[in-house]
Amino acid sequence: MKLNFTYTPPDFTDTTLVSSSPAKLAPAPADGIAPENYHATSNHPEYIKIDSGEWLLAPEGRMDAVFVVDSRTIEVTEARRLKKGDLVVVGRTENGEEGILVHEKGFDEVAANEDKFSFRSRGTRETPFSYSYDNLYEILKHDRDHGHIVWVLGPAVAFDKDSRSAMQGLIENGYCHALMAGNALATHDIEAAVFDTGLGQNIYSQILQPMGHYNHLDILNRVRQAGSISKAIETMGIDNGIMYACETCKIPYILAGSIRDDGPLPETIGNVYESQDRMRYHARKATTVITMATQLHSIAFGNMTPGYKILEDGTVRPVCFYVVDMSEFSADKLANRGSAQAQAILTNVQDFIVNLWNHLSKNG
Amino acid sequence: MKLNFTYTPPDFTDTTLVSSSPAKLAPAPADGIAPENYHATSNHPEYIKIDSGEWLLAPEGRMDAVFVVDSRTIEVTEARRLKKGDLVVVGRTENGEEGILVHEKGFDEVAANEDKFSFRSRGTRETPFSYSYDNLYEILKHDRDHGHIVWVLGPAVAFDKDSRSAMQGLIENGYCHALMAGNALATHDIEAAVFDTGLGQNIYSQILQPMGHYNHLDILNRVRQAGSISKAIETMGIDNGIMYACETCKIPYILAGSIRDDGPLPETIGNVYESQDRMRYHARKATTVITMATQLHSIAFGNMTPGYKILEDGTVRPVCFYVVDMSEFSADKLANRGSAQAQAILTNVQDFIVNLWNHLSKNG
Amino acid sequence: MKLNFTYTPPDFTDTTLVSSSPAKLAPAPADGIAPENYHATSNHPEYIKIDSGEWLLAPEGRMDAVFVVDSRTIEVTEARRLKKGDLVVVGRTENGEEGILVHEKGFDEVAANEDKFSFRSRGTRETPFSYSYDNLYEILKHDRDHGHIVWVLGPAVAFDKDSRSAMQGLIENGYCHALMAGNALATHDIEAAVFDTGLGQNIYSQILQPMGHYNHLDILNRVRQAGSISKAIETMGIDNGIMYACETCKIPYILAGSIRDDGPLPETIGNVYESQDRMRYHARKATTVITMATQLHSIAFGNMTPGYKILEDGTVRPVCFYVVDMSEFSADKLANRGSAQAQAILTNVQDFIVNLWNHLSKNG
Amino acid sequence: MKLNFTYTPPDFTDTTLVSSSPAKLAPAPADGIAPENYHATSNHPEYIKIDSGEWLLAPEGRMDAVFVVDSRTIEVTEARRLKKGDLVVVGRTENGEEGILVHEKGFDEVAANEDKFSFRSRGTRETPFSYSYDNLYEILKHDRDHGHIVWVLGPAVAFDKDSRSAMQGLIENGYCHALMAGNALATHDIEAAVFDTGLGQNIYSQILQPMGHYNHLDILNRVRQAGSISKAIETMGIDNGIMYACETCKIPYILAGSIRDDGPLPETIGNVYESQDRMRYHARKATTVITMATQLHSIAFGNMTPGYKILEDGTVRPVCFYVVDMSEFSADKLANRGSAQAQAILTNVQDFIVNLWNHLSKNG
Repeated sequence: MKLNFTYTPPDFTDTTLVSSSPAKLAPAPADGIAPENYHATSNHPEYIKIDSGEWLLAPEGRMDAVFVVDSRTIEVTEARRLKKGDLVVVGRTENGEEGILVHEKGFDEVAANEDKFSFRSRGTRETPFSYSYDNLYEILKHDRDHGHIVWVLGPAVAFDKDSRSAMQGLIENGYCHALMAGNALATHDIEAAVFDTGLGQNIYSQILQPMGHYNHLDILNRVRQAGSISKAIETMGIDNGIMYACETCKIPYILAGSIRDDGPLPETIGNVYESQDRMRYHARKATTVITMATQLHSIAFGNMTPGYKILEDGTVRPVCFYVVDMSEFSADKLANRGSAQAQAILTNVQDFIVNLWNHLSKNG
Repeated sequence: MKLNFTYTPPDFTDTTLVSSSPAKLAPAPADGIAPENYHATSNHPEYIKIDSGEWLLAPEGRMDAVFVVDSRTIEVTEARRLKKGDLVVVGRTENGEEGILVHEKGFDEVAANEDKFSFRSRGTRETPFSYSYDNLYEILKHDRDHGHIVWVLGPAVAFDKDSRSAMQGLIENGYCHALMAGNALATHDIEAAVFDTGLGQNIYSQILQPMGHYNHLDILNRVRQAGSISKAIETMGIDNGIMYACETCKIPYILAGSIRDDGPLPETIGNVYESQDRMRYHARKATTVITMATQLHSIAFGNMTPGYKILEDGTVRPVCFYVVDMSEFSADKLANRGSAQAQAILTNVQDFIVNLWNHLSKNG
Repeated sequence: MKLNFTYTPPDFTDTTLVSSSPAKLAPAPADGIAPENYHATSNHPEYIKIDSGEWLLAPEGRMDAVFVVDSRTIEVTEARRLKKGDLVVVGRTENGEEGILVHEKGFDEVAANEDKFSFRSRGTRETPFSYSYDNLYEILKHDRDHGHIVWVLGPAVAFDKDSRSAMQGLIENGYCHALMAGNALATHDIEAAVFDTGLGQNIYSQILQPMGHYNHLDILNRVRQAGSISKAIETMGIDNGIMYACETCKIPYILAGSIRDDGPLPETIGNVYESQDRMRYHARKATTVITMATQLHSIAFGNMTPGYKILEDGTVRPVCFYVVDMSEFSADKLANRGSAQAQAILTNVQDFIVNLWNHLSKNG
Repeated sequence: MKLNFTYTPPDFTDTTLVSSSPAKLAPAPADGIAPENYHATSNHPEYIKIDSGEWLLAPEGRMDAVFVVDSRTIEVTEARRLKKGDLVVVGRTENGEEGILVHEKGFDEVAANEDKFSFRSRGTRETPFSYSYDNLYEILKHDRDHGHIVWVLGPAVAFDKDSRSAMQGLIENGYCHALMAGNALATHDIEAAVFDTGLGQNIYSQILQPMGHYNHLDILNRVRQAGSISKAIETMGIDNGIMYACETCKIPYILAGSIRDDGPLPETIGNVYESQDRMRYHARKATTVITMATQLHSIAFGNMTPGYKILEDGTVRPVCFYVVDMSEFSADKLANRGSAQAQAILTNVQDFIVNLWNHLSKNG
């Protein structure tokens, strides 16, 4: 299977694009406030006509942010990060009329079926996923060396022995450049390393260990006492798991705090907007994103991830975004919050990750 | 991993069991009608004390049926199949008082956790399934040669290239002794063999073929014209798939008709009670049952499947029953209809069956 | 709120429609077999050009059937019902080129949003349903006197006291002209009338009654002994419920058998194709259909229901089709099987039916 | 219907309870760190034997916290809030042996069904909910004047016209003493007040407004510019909705920030542990909690809510906890995280809240 990342830029000889005025700018009236009629970004490639008459492709776009223009540079930034006086692109047209062009058809897509009557127009758990897997294998093999693969994990990945090992294998073999998760994933993973349980349930035999809920709480208490995950790995003699693999392979991870947290672990970030900023750093670099069994983190990361990436040599490629979940509702919700380009694979993440690792460990 | 099929019979020296009277019998008042106060069977092992004073284990029990006693033989039969005058066991106690003993704890089970507070007391998609897989591998390897494995398939298994091939592999390699399904599974499977589509959608690329819904209808028309699936396989040159494997390996299959059917295929049984009777034939023989992505057929087959099997040498073993589905609701519904012993594996059947075949084709 | 049932017929002065040849016909080669290249019907209005040059609108269309032409009359029939020699329309184009016109845009619809980026493009449980309810109230009030309302019920409607009463109220007040269900719905409903339970669980207090599973089985045995539901209502003194309301109000009902059935009740139809034929009788008459909590019956009835209805005065109106279910998957599945016009209301049918009756009993 | 809040305290004449030693205490070794062998609290009533030999019921318990004892007072606190040297109860037995008694059976409960075979042992969407509604009506009428009702809302409540109005009605009529939500609920609600949309979709007609996604972003920008929700209500002339009702009725609300937030609104709390502390303030006061369509907030609030409340006159009553959601998985997950006493009502929150308000506005 050959990957197809071809990007077709807009036709800049188009009359509207040639004749339109440069995009209008207006200053932010206060810190964190956008000017009236600000243009909100999408996750598609967007071009801004600057005063020189050139159309510039915005680097590292994301949805629901604004463009700040400083002479020849465009920055895509969250409104809350604006400084008073920043020059923000205004205008709410999309086809170049006002110097703003949303180019949503740059990547090859399968033509839509135009039959007046057809079966199976909607993606569901019954959609065949063999191709999705094969395609993803190729993307991961490619991006291991030539991209930036970001994993966004819900806690369930650490609840099962085989899926936890598979995730460890993927990290240790270069298939993960950054990991986004919450306090629970890390806590469950360390509990599994120390007690072979997740919230007191054995991650293999399914047996609930007597007084097993203490395992969870004890892990939090001990790691907090150790002062950091890396120190806890050392002092507690941990030699396996997801967090262990991140630490030993120097893979950056971000543990975003939430109101559900126990503990929390020392590395967990209490302020959610600081979490966003640190996650956004990796969203800007991402070429492939896989989110698993977490609606909260999937939507959060989807919001901040561009639909495209400008490589160092200037070529534009799509950012591949996969959402793995059990329910159509979760996939639909991601689309309903703007990440319509996300490809859904509807299954249990335990099987998904084991499948992936089975294949890549033999053919990677 | 060692399989544990140990059965502990009741302690027949127990006072109640020794002193109780034989079970009372009453004649069926009409064809298809049970007498007042009939005893309804469960899927647990049940013992009946006959006039000789002996406790006999009912062969091939099922839920919601009745016991017909003929001197020293007990038959478990559906009330609709009673003949006027058949002697039916009456009484609604379970502990031997009236000569009826429901023995629900004969098979070793994990002791329930008795903590006053604990996490994870309910099985969900987050339950770890590594052990379930490993256990199932062993069961299938064992039962291939020493049991009777029945598969109950929803149509989705034929919609995906890899899962369809995996199912074919399992059949061709002895892991399937009988297959229960509906008209749709067979039709989709043959459509895949001829057109590489399922209801018009390519089973690999996911592309909807123009006018693809005709593929489905044409298959039905052609097989009907051929007169049977086996003739259609010959005349249409089919050389792959689930139905192909059943035909070439002489694996019996039952296609139970439903009100959703198009066509139907010649082999599809229009009368649902005839379907039940023919499915029950295989339920009586089953040692392991796997139902995939079909609530209707899962519950139907669950209703008629004993929780135990008396082997030829007289030993009693559990019938292993797995339900594979995407939603907790489906697993709960099976339990709420009486099949509480069914083990749920919550995932997409595509992954499940591919996992199974990946393992067994290498280690089987 | 004013109902809008306006239908815009095709523009028959269109050149293609004027110049095209009449539809080609070919004889069915055998009973139950369609000729090569047969045209399969959709649930949209379809026009056939007959030899006189006239375009005739097919009466009572349904999906996946064929057109049989007999001089000036067109019949839409299931292929399995063809007789050898019946003249069947052949051709697989849709725009009139071969005398077949699929007219899918006859009813006013909201124009699709064409934004390049938007939220909430997919219907889910989060879609606002206030309008759907208000619209449905008006439709039911209108169709009570000027239409044919068909209800398709899953068994859960009989499990709850208030929803069961609401359904009874709707039937008794003219809001139901025919009821489609299975053996379970009727059995649970009669169990509720006699024992206040559904499968042994109290329909109000939720308490599981000891040995409650006998309630279900006893009802089946007693009604079978009585010989019919109507006789059982008399002999058992039943004075409430869904079946009671149907019997006393002379509302036709069809209980389609399935392989899940216990019993069955005397009225339950064992042969699924006979069930289809009898359901199709009501599908042809339907102006509004509401299916609740039953994937099997929803898809079955959706398959056979036209998207439009030709009234006695010749006007064409849409058939309103609502599917009420808890999961996006069920609504998607109905669409994926061709019933894309069905409007989903994603909720528990208990609340849905209580809401409906609350409103109509006060404002109807 | 009569509410039954009867509490049966432990039998303190029980030999174990009389003879056991007082609970052992150990000092916290550092801020935020519990001593070895600390006792973790459950949400059940727990009694601690203090040095005087008295058994004291812990006030305002919650799960996964610790007991800090200061002479005759016991405080239940999160481990992260410990100060070095705080005296923490140690010991992991539950039956009084070490001065710690977990009393999980203080409130009357329906005796479990002990049949060896039964249907419907699990709660699902098919469970009858009429009683749950009737019971909840009585609880709300009682607690409006004699309790503290806390609502925990997911954003979907603001997406529908009728459900949003119903929630407003409940607040304005005294049925809500505190509201827990996130940034999205408040933003969607204010968008509905100003534009009649939620994320650009009309909350009544379901129509997606062109460029509707700006409605969401503009609301955030404007409220941020106004400086607070209360000022925005004034300057923007808002006169309806959930936030409006809270502000005009002086109902405290907490908007807990999350990584999914846009904006955020000025009142949204960025630090999740500060959110927890402020939510906990209301959890301590709660007599009834209703969580709707939010797994994150439901589990978070469930973690910190006691299963019981000591009233001013010293009597102990249960805290009623309802979780309203569409999926069994969500209800199970809440139970799997320790809130096993939460009663699930499986339906769409739109219907739930409209039902509630319909009843209470007429009968309250």
